[in-house]
Parts: sequence; C-alpha cells; structure tokens
Amino acid sequence: MAEPGGSAVELLRRFEAGERLALARVISKVENREPGYRELLAALYPRTGRARRIGITGPPGAGKSTLVDRLARLLCGDGGRVGIVAVDPTSPFTGGALLGDRVRMGDLSDVPGVFIRSMATRGVGGGLAAATRDVTLVLEAFGFELLLVETVGVGQIEIEVMNLCDTVALLFVPESGDGIQTLKAGLIEISHLFIVNKADRPGALQLASELDHVLKERRRDGWTYPVLLAEAVNGKGVAEVLGALQEHCTYLAAEGRRQAVRLRHAAHDLETALRERVRTYLYSEVLSPARIDHYAGRIAAGTLDPYRAADELWQESLAGDAIEPKQESSR
Amino acid sequence: MAEPGGSAVELLRRFEAGERLALARVISKVENREPGYRELLAALYPRTGRARRIGITGPPGAGKSTLVDRLARLLCGDGGRVGIVAVDPTSPFTGGALLGDRVRMGDLSDVPGVFIRSMATRGVGGGLAAATRDVTLVLEAFGFELLLVETVGVGQIEIEVMNLCDTVALLFVPESGDGIQTLKAGLIEISHLFIVNKADRPGALQLASELDHVLKERRRDGWTYPVLLAEAVNGKGVAEVLGALQEHCTYLAAEGRRQAVRLRHAAHDLETALRERVRTYLYSEVLSPARIDHYAGRIAAGTLDPYRAADELWQESLAGDAIEPKQESSR
Repeated sequence: MAEPGGSAVELLRRFEAGERLALARVISKVENREPGYRELLAALYPRTGRARRIGITGPPGAGKSTLVDRLARLLCGDGGRVGIVAVDPTSPFTGGALLGDRVRMGDLSDVPGVFIRSMATRGVGGGLAAATRDVTLVLEAFGFELLLVETVGVGQIEIEVMNLCDTVALLFVPESGDGIQTLKAGLIEISHLFIVNKADRPGALQLASELDHVLKERRRDGWTYPVLLAEAVNGKGVAEVLGALQEHCTYLAAEGRRQAVRLRHAAHDLETALRERVRTYLYSEVLSPARIDHYAGRIAAGTLDPYRAADELWQESLAGDAIEPKQESSR
Repeated sequence: MAEPGGSAVELLRRFEAGERLALARVISKVENREPGYRELLAALYPRTGRARRIGITGPPGAGKSTLVDRLARLLCGDGGRVGIVAVDPTSPFTGGALLGDRVRMGDLSDVPGVFIRSMATRGVGGGLAAATRDVTLVLEAFGFELLLVETVGVGQIEIEVMNLCDTVALLFVPESGDGIQTLKAGLIEISHLFIVNKADRPGALQLASELDHVLKERRRDGWTYPVLLAEAVNGKGVAEVLGALQEHCTYLAAEGRRQAVRLRHAAHDLETALRERVRTYLYSEVLSPARIDHYAGRIAAGTLDPYRAADELWQESLAGDAIEPKQESSR
C-alpha cells in the first residue's frame, strides 16, 4: 500500500476480490463517514439494486435476535449467504441489557455464509438510518443478495430504517399486554408480516386472533397480512416465517411493485445524499468557527436573532459573497 | 381578526398581553413548523436569554414526572411561575405506559403559575430537539423565568435536549442494577446533579455511594457533583434538590460561566436556524417532486448513483441554473 490515494483503490480491489477484511474496512469507512466514503459508495452503487432487505423489528425482549439467528441458519443451511445488520440506537440507560442480546447473537459469526454487523450509536439525528442504508448497500455490492436488518424498535429512527426494507416483520410477545393497542399506526403500516413469538406463553393465541381481526380490515393492494405464531428459541414456526417472507417476495415481484419499491429507495438515497452534501457545504463553506463565534456573540448580546442571522448567512453564501465575518452593523 | 397577515400581528399582540390561549397557539405554531413560525420566533427572540432551563432526565420509571411535579409545587408556592416542557419521543411500543405518566402530571395544570406542554413525537430526526428549544424560547418570551424540561432519557435526541439546558439533573432508581455502569459517558458529562430517587428501596445507599465515588474524580472547573437521595412521591429530599439546583445557578453566575453557556446556546440556535433555512431551500428550490422522480428513475435504472446526482443537483443550484430536469445524458 502506497499513499492514501493508492490505498483507496487497493481497498476497492480487495473488496472486489471478496476479501472479508476489506468488506469490514469499507463498512467502517462508510459508517463513520471517513474521508472518501462518498467516492466509495458512488463506486459501489451500480452493483446494488437487486438484494432483498428484510427488516425484523419489535419491542425489547420479543426475541428478534433469536429469530434472526434461526432464519440465518435456515437460509445458510443450503449454502446461502446472509448479511445481517443489527441496528441499536443504544439507550444510554439500558446499554448493558441490549449488549447481552448482541453477545448472544455473536455465535452466528461462526456460521459459514453469514456476515454480521452491529451499527454503533450515532449522535447525528437521522444519521443512523442513512448510515444503515449505506451499510446494506455495501453488503449488497459485496455480493449478499439477502439482508436481514434488525432494530430494537423503540423510536422514529427505527421506523425510518424499516421503511428502507422491502419486507418488514413485526414481532410481538404475549406479554405485550395491551397488544396492538400500544402500537403506533405508523409501525403497523410499514409492516408486512406479524409474528407472535414465545407462542407457548399464555395469551399468545388471543393476541394472534386480536391481530388477525384488526389486520383483516387493513388488506392493502392485494396483500393479506399474515399473522404467525412462533417459538424462535426452539426453532418452531421459523420455516413458516421464511415461507411468508418468500410469499411477500413473490407478491412484490408482480405488477411492477418491485420497481415502485426501487424508485422509493432511489428517491430516499438521493435525498440522503443531497442532505449530506449540503451539510458538508454548510460546515465547510458557511459556518466557519470564526463566523459561528461572530454571530453567536451578536445573538447572545441580543442585537441579532438566529433566524435573521441564518437568512443573512444563507443569502450571502448563495450570492457567493466573501464569507468572512462582516463588520458589526448597527441595526 | 381580519386576513391572515393581520391575524399574526393580532396573535402576537394577545401573546404580549399575557393571554394563555395565545401562548398555547404560538407554541403549536412553532412546534408544528406552521407557516410564519420563523417570523414569530424572530419577533420573540429579543425577549429571551435570561430564563433558567433545568433539565430532568433518567430512565423510564425513575420518577421524573413526580419530581417535576413536586419541584413545580414548591416553586409556585411562593407565587413563582414555572414553565414545564415534557419531551417524549414516544416509543411506538410503550406509548401506553408513557401516556400514564403524562396523565398523572396533568394534575399540575391546576396549580397557579404552572404552564405545562407535552411535545408530540416528531418524525424529523433531530427536529425534536430543535422544536423543544424553540418552545422553551416561546415560554421565556412569555415571561417564564424558570423552565423545567423533562425527557424520558432513552436516546441521543434526549441528550441533545439536555445539552440545551443550563442545569441537568439525572435521576436513578436503586433497581438500575448495574447502576452507573449502564450509563453512557455522554450522559454523565452533561449532568450536574445526581439524584437517587425512591431512596426507601433496597440498594439506594449503595448506589449513591457508588455514584459519589465515581463522580469525585470528575470534579470539573470548580463544580463538585452533588449526589442526593430523594423520595419524590412523598416530597422527601425535594427541597434539597431545589437547593442544589440553586447552588448550580450561583456557580454559573460566577466567572463568566453564564456568558459561556449563553454563547453555546446562541451558536446552537444559529446552527439550527441555518439548517432549517437550508432544508426549506432544498425542498422548495432544489428537490421538486418532478426532479426527484427524474433522478430517482435514473438511479433506479442504474445509470446514475445518488452521490453524483446530489453533487450535480447541488452544483446546479449553487450556480443558479434552471432547475427543471435536464435531458438524460449518456454517461
């Protein structure tokens, strides 16, 4: 490896040769937004667009990791390959418990054909969803045609992540209590499969029939929402989940639905790329530390409000004016 | 009320006259980013900069709402006024439980001098923190000099919200188990007071002494982190919490620390306003539905990657070129 410029080319060459270490390195570059990540993504993007992204979500303790584990083993049993991305916008309070989940899933890394990546927490609002999407693109460019994306399902960001999957399976446990009453409409509307896991526990059948009842009225565009019972930990019902996932794949293949999904994802990728492009522009060209200090001083002193300051800065920058702080004007 | 233009002026007049209904209306406009919200904020901003923002955070079930309730009653007992903003990026799964909390806190609305506002979930990543900041600015402009901001403390957004407070109190309960081990460093670093609530439960003293031990080494810039025991539900320890909050206020008043906090908030307000300004520009001037469709089609067809598309769009827009979709170029 020679200079930095050469090493990016070398990294890409090794990635293309199928080296797992190169894959891990590319993912890290992309996830951490290291210099050159955009060029990397641009180079890889043409090799994407065919993989299936399956989202698995549900409340903490619903057994998502276990189901992902069982699905991956089943899929790789025939020599298949599965890329897994575990998204965990870790709670600052429950980090310990969630980590336990991850450690358990670590076993999967011994299964041939499986590649697992846990996404680290990212401070940037909305950044996690974009980074997750990019990591699945990298995995796809590497050759994975089936991607499982697992999120702990406790917020808006997870809904955004799921929205970038082709198929979403939503897990419940009998103890959910209020059952679907506690679910925001948004989550049901982006889900395609409903799974009552830990089905040996009391209340499982009732929850399933309650779900069935509510979902019957929600049949949409020819898709009937399946409600499945499973005990992922014992492998029970996992083949049926896989079957239902396949059915949704067949469903998407018909009547131009896959193309519609692809266009939706393309539009999202464009918006994300543009937002990051503009963000870079903002911080490199508009909001220099000197300018922030200058304007913050005026704002704190009460001689300017941030909205007028933003308008001023933005108009200046669009007009291509000099961007060094101007003299204080009396207003 | 006459035409829309007149009604904004009228709303501001009623707000300035101290009408609570006008306050609620202004908050809604700002929270929901209704047309004209920027002008409203710009008009109100000069009246801000003096209020104290106290953040109360901690894991679900730590008793944050109860503590906020007791603090507010204590503060308003002497005829004081307190604005409360409850931030709740509601989990799609635990919405029910969190709502219970809110309902309980509803009692406070009968206390003279108290104004409570719950922030609704916002889909926009990072938007919640900005909207919360703006709502506290509105409350301040209305005349509230003390603001309590409560978040359920389960993610990055809450850390951002807390970062916009002058003083942050972090709540624990003995059952936290691993105690501070489960806390991300980021949360400790933005907190100034540490409270072990439900102190009658087993393990409270041990947790407090563990906290004391760890925090002793973290004394920073002359501030010693207090660790307090409380039973908010019985009112025990609440006066001590208030005392510690006052001490931090005194601490901030010295050696230009308050000015440093004000500059930090001003810089944040500027960045937020600029990001929203640019976002508006993006969606109104750059990303028209026709252009999204055009580019998404090329991206989905594999003839263009989103990163290059974003560069192209952005350069065009900076150059002030016509913004209608160009003819497909062969590349």
